[in-house]
Amino acid sequence: MTERNPAFVLQSIRNVTFEDREVPKLRDEHDVRVHIEQTGICGSDVHYWQRGRIGDFILNSPIVLGHESAGTVVEIGSKVKNVKVGDRVAIEPGVPCRHCDYCRSGAYNLCADTIFAATPPWDGTLQKYYIVAGDYCYPIPDHMTAEDGALVEPVAVAVQICKVADLRAGQTVLVFGCGPIGALCQAVAKGYGASKVIGVDISKSRAAFAEKYGADGIFIPEKSSDPNLDPVDASRATAEKIVEQFGLGEGVDVVLECTGAAPCIQAGIFAARKGGTYVQAGMGQENVVFPITTACIRALNIKGSIRYTTGCYPKAVELVASGKVNPRALITHRFKFEQSLEAFEVVKKASEDTLKVMIEGVQ
Amino acid sequence: MTERNPAFVLQSIRNVTFEDREVPKLRDEHDVRVHIEQTGICGSDVHYWQRGRIGDFILNSPIVLGHESAGTVVEIGSKVKNVKVGDRVAIEPGVPCRHCDYCRSGAYNLCADTIFAATPPWDGTLQKYYIVAGDYCYPIPDHMTAEDGALVEPVAVAVQICKVADLRAGQTVLVFGCGPIGALCQAVAKGYGASKVIGVDISKSRAAFAEKYGADGIFIPEKSSDPNLDPVDASRATAEKIVEQFGLGEGVDVVLECTGAAPCIQAGIFAARKGGTYVQAGMGQENVVFPITTACIRALNIKGSIRYTTGCYPKAVELVASGKVNPRALITHRFKFEQSLEAFEVVKKASEDTLKVMIEGVQ
Amino acid sequence: MTERNPAFVLQSIRNVTFEDREVPKLRDEHDVRVHIEQTGICGSDVHYWQRGRIGDFILNSPIVLGHESAGTVVEIGSKVKNVKVGDRVAIEPGVPCRHCDYCRSGAYNLCADTIFAATPPWDGTLQKYYIVAGDYCYPIPDHMTAEDGALVEPVAVAVQICKVADLRAGQTVLVFGCGPIGALCQAVAKGYGASKVIGVDISKSRAAFAEKYGADGIFIPEKSSDPNLDPVDASRATAEKIVEQFGLGEGVDVVLECTGAAPCIQAGIFAARKGGTYVQAGMGQENVVFPITTACIRALNIKGSIRYTTGCYPKAVELVASGKVNPRALITHRFKFEQSLEAFEVVKKASEDTLKVMIEGVQ
Amino acid sequence: MTERNPAFVLQSIRNVTFEDREVPKLRDEHDVRVHIEQTGICGSDVHYWQRGRIGDFILNSPIVLGHESAGTVVEIGSKVKNVKVGDRVAIEPGVPCRHCDYCRSGAYNLCADTIFAATPPWDGTLQKYYIVAGDYCYPIPDHMTAEDGALVEPVAVAVQICKVADLRAGQTVLVFGCGPIGALCQAVAKGYGASKVIGVDISKSRAAFAEKYGADGIFIPEKSSDPNLDPVDASRATAEKIVEQFGLGEGVDVVLECTGAAPCIQAGIFAARKGGTYVQAGMGQENVVFPITTACIRALNIKGSIRYTTGCYPKAVELVASGKVNPRALITHRFKFEQSLEAFEVVKKASEDTLKVMIEGVQ
Repeated sequence: MTERNPAFVLQSIRNVTFEDREVPKLRDEHDVRVHIEQTGICGSDVHYWQRGRIGDFILNSPIVLGHESAGTVVEIGSKVKNVKVGDRVAIEPGVPCRHCDYCRSGAYNLCADTIFAATPPWDGTLQKYYIVAGDYCYPIPDHMTAEDGALVEPVAVAVQICKVADLRAGQTVLVFGCGPIGALCQAVAKGYGASKVIGVDISKSRAAFAEKYGADGIFIPEKSSDPNLDPVDASRATAEKIVEQFGLGEGVDVVLECTGAAPCIQAGIFAARKGGTYVQAGMGQENVVFPITTACIRALNIKGSIRYTTGCYPKAVELVASGKVNPRALITHRFKFEQSLEAFEVVKKASEDTLKVMIEGVQ
Repeated sequence: MTERNPAFVLQSIRNVTFEDREVPKLRDEHDVRVHIEQTGICGSDVHYWQRGRIGDFILNSPIVLGHESAGTVVEIGSKVKNVKVGDRVAIEPGVPCRHCDYCRSGAYNLCADTIFAATPPWDGTLQKYYIVAGDYCYPIPDHMTAEDGALVEPVAVAVQICKVADLRAGQTVLVFGCGPIGALCQAVAKGYGASKVIGVDISKSRAAFAEKYGADGIFIPEKSSDPNLDPVDASRATAEKIVEQFGLGEGVDVVLECTGAAPCIQAGIFAARKGGTYVQAGMGQENVVFPITTACIRALNIKGSIRYTTGCYPKAVELVASGKVNPRALITHRFKFEQSLEAFEVVKKASEDTLKVMIEGVQ
Repeated sequence: MTERNPAFVLQSIRNVTFEDREVPKLRDEHDVRVHIEQTGICGSDVHYWQRGRIGDFILNSPIVLGHESAGTVVEIGSKVKNVKVGDRVAIEPGVPCRHCDYCRSGAYNLCADTIFAATPPWDGTLQKYYIVAGDYCYPIPDHMTAEDGALVEPVAVAVQICKVADLRAGQTVLVFGCGPIGALCQAVAKGYGASKVIGVDISKSRAAFAEKYGADGIFIPEKSSDPNLDPVDASRATAEKIVEQFGLGEGVDVVLECTGAAPCIQAGIFAARKGGTYVQAGMGQENVVFPITTACIRALNIKGSIRYTTGCYPKAVELVASGKVNPRALITHRFKFEQSLEAFEVVKKASEDTLKVMIEGVQ
Repeated sequence: MTERNPAFVLQSIRNVTFEDREVPKLRDEHDVRVHIEQTGICGSDVHYWQRGRIGDFILNSPIVLGHESAGTVVEIGSKVKNVKVGDRVAIEPGVPCRHCDYCRSGAYNLCADTIFAATPPWDGTLQKYYIVAGDYCYPIPDHMTAEDGALVEPVAVAVQICKVADLRAGQTVLVFGCGPIGALCQAVAKGYGASKVIGVDISKSRAAFAEKYGADGIFIPEKSSDPNLDPVDASRATAEKIVEQFGLGEGVDVVLECTGAAPCIQAGIFAARKGGTYVQAGMGQENVVFPITTACIRALNIKGSIRYTTGCYPKAVELVASGKVNPRALITHRFKFEQSLEAFEVVKKASEDTLKVMIEGVQ
């Protein structure tokens, strides 16, 4: 009997089905085929399911969902050197064109022609087998589980954020957001030798998790009781409170903004010390009211972080393998492949107690 | 007869007088006394005169105005090595504390204890003699005039902006603003080997000057004719027009924002290429609506530039001495010391045709 | 009649022949075929001809010689975007694997699997048609000749050297060597806004050329008359003489070593200012006596430069197109394709008056 | 009775005495007076004692010895802000001029006019009271002992070496030398998140200490048994053995050379991966045979490290206070002030088992 390739497919907005597809073939000699074992669900997967688009990426034809995955290599092309059949690997979900100036200069996260899993029109990893370039697979050691391997993806996002921040040992770090990316940024920052890492979240349960997980301290902003207070002034007051409460001197060395919320963005700018660094990693509103004069006078370095670059996956694997970062602790829900819709419903609900939702692959 | 030290003093808001002060004394063995020969007037001088404050700097006692000056060294302290009596020098107007971490790490532009000429409570240079640390005086060659020497100050501001931008030969550069700082940024960028420098200004006459002065091309934004267009969308459209008109590919390598105006700030972010650099140097409104998601997705480097750091003055002197930058061409008005009030009135009027106004020192 | 592809082939050491090969085919859809119009000869071409090896690259089978070329695109693969048939292009001779960490991080000059023209076992460009990846071809404007286009290669080498040096406007630069690479480094440094560029060569004629070409000053070291002087001490004395003669203060900001000769390497280290930068680009002896304590105490930055990275070719094209660098002025000899052996003999002789030797392509 | 200031004075080569000096006075309002509590002895102290010079620093008049010290602030000048009387502090022993370009640009370790403790003609810290600029004193927390505080000095040397190396989390690091500086570099590298740190020393006991202290692995080079082997080839073989034995792939990311010995310098260059970083921190022979072509072809970054820069002391204090680095474990011998000569004799003997020798201050 011919082997088949079950897949969880987004047919159109809010319309998902299971399909029994053919086993996919290598596209060229650099490709490998991976038997997917675990997949984490991310907000963007749900966003395509519910809205059918993110920015310029629009769902015009069905795509397989899922992009945070690990599995076992079952077939390799003739030119693949870095992995072999049987290797357990974490999969980097975006393979760039390798020919544009961004790719050639090491900034492949900016390549416009990247084939990114579960980003229209490209299929994702919620299928039995996934085809990907061999050099975008990273072997994981035996003592890492497939769940660990799948969650190398959000760890790699955090590694890139810290790389963009040029985060150094001994620095003070303020992270807005205690969801998976925020919490992982806090853990990675500690792994990098940061002297003090403070997490901020409006959810008490997420903040409480962060405190146990990686942060040296947490801050839960309260709503201003003064209805006449200008929102930006309120953000400034929040920043000043954080800096004072945690003894951060003239301000923090590094701010990692992982929420995209205007009050966090503003408070982040006000909380940075002169000459400090602020990284925008969260995405929310397109435009926000922004304290540009403060950014200018304080000579801040403000940078955007997106996806990952070379070295992020190996560093993320090393952080997990060495025990410095434990992504499995983020898992709050586990589902079988056949329960994929149920898993997506949980992520969609976005309850305070939901951190990471996993789907086990087809055996 | 004892020598005297005439000074142009801001007594209180909108109240200036000439005073006949005593000749000032060196404060320590690192100081020098400079006989001031030329002083350029800057917007901040006028701002203190009219409003009595900029940010946290508040006029609580009289100050001598003026901070863009050159002159001749007439007295030096025993430990001064870099200049000698008789040297003609450009004066860097801010001398930092030398003891804080900013000073010790080379970021003395961020020192909170800087003695900055004509910034309350510190006296400026519109007096016959000015006392300053010797190492903040920079000899100028014979073929540079005292006007050139005084205008090393705004050239040094432009040099710092280009330093913050990490501007390299071969880059494309978009400068918002064609006033003195904008025009000088354009000229410095060309001197640094930029491949294409475009200046933007809403004033036709300033843009026309910039085109003759340093820019490879100029752009004069028009007001949107569509009253329903969102202002940020209008800024995006302006950016796209600039990029298309000047063949800037996916966007410019470097944006230097020298106006502080919201539409320029927004257009600057939209005009930058992925991974590009944007420097905020202009100051206007405290807060502006800012396309933060674009900054994030494009992985921009956004930096604030303020004052100058080590090396800016020597580089500025070298650019002027070598003829690569000609600051004298910016001068539109010249006054004697006794006409200082008249000079300030011209700057206050801020006519389109006014670029740089100079005041000759007391002989 | 079927079209043919004449080629100038190194069969074995010191044994070259003309072959009438088949017209080569595109290897994949990213490739283009270029009709070669001009080729410059480089020392490494001659080295393979005479010695059959450079380092680990050993001539085990025949290769076509030549790697500094320009021509016209006559065929393109289906995925080529950056050039079209009819474009006149400069060819970057090394196409890396695009899959290793060096390639993925922007350091493709370090890729061990690069296909480099005329480096065993890869064929070079001294044939009518050359197959190369489209993105390693760079269009040149109409006013650049094919000779200019071919000589973009050594200009790109100089651009990479200056990139490795992180060369900035206003810096002082000392270049050891006034042959093609040295002279081009001097010209590129001037194009980048260097304040003073000094060239060093033991050949009076090469130094004289450099002085007319790009250098602000030249230095011709003399042999020490003291037979008892330690060679390193002699090099130090040379460095001190250079620094004093050209008023370079405590030492130069940037040293570019383009000879590989021990006395130059030593003098370069001694001539650099504390905290300055030294780039090793020339290759001679494997090991040299090196003033390591001086390098340590002065906190020098010593870097090796090899080949080119992303952006070098576009910058080199821009420097030539804008007239800032004129590589054609280096040409001392011109030959037809049929005279290729004669051309190689001239380069082999290495007379002082030989700078660049060109071979015109087959029409 | 007037208080006195006992001091351990190097009168001339190999001639030390105890002197009963007057209590020193603050030189200006930025100074503080510190009651010295512990002092570590360093090879350079012994060098001046035995040879009377290091490089250009020559003993022409008596100096107090000692420069690795901590104590309690007993008097402060009127402008001192960062410490107060009663603070326990680590003392940075070199106070630069604050006026030269090196100081002003943050590279004060290169300042030629630094007042450095126990470097002729400046007195050191082996006296009851030491006068130093307040901003070169760094408060230590209660749980750090005075010995810990004194040994912040060598920790700060290691911090600077790692800063020069731009050492990042996840990198592989090879350290030549397992004496105090080498061992501390290994510990700091681990504290910075290095993934693998290998120490190299010819002394088995020092290597054994390093293995327990901070290194992930150690390597003890053996003398080559082949008398005909070229020394540089032997160094290359050593490097290859290290890389293979510890699974370092194509070579290590970062080499920290803390011995100054030619075989280590050579092996360090050969052990670095392409594009890797090598820091020269050890000082031995002035000149060594150096594999310059390998440095060039591999595009290495070779840098010298000397003394410390802003931020090194605070980071060193933080590393010790947080327990990431435990300098006290290096102490092998402890002496009273009156036994200072005995302490120096121990360091002079340089037995394999001697790591750090401490002298307790006068009470």
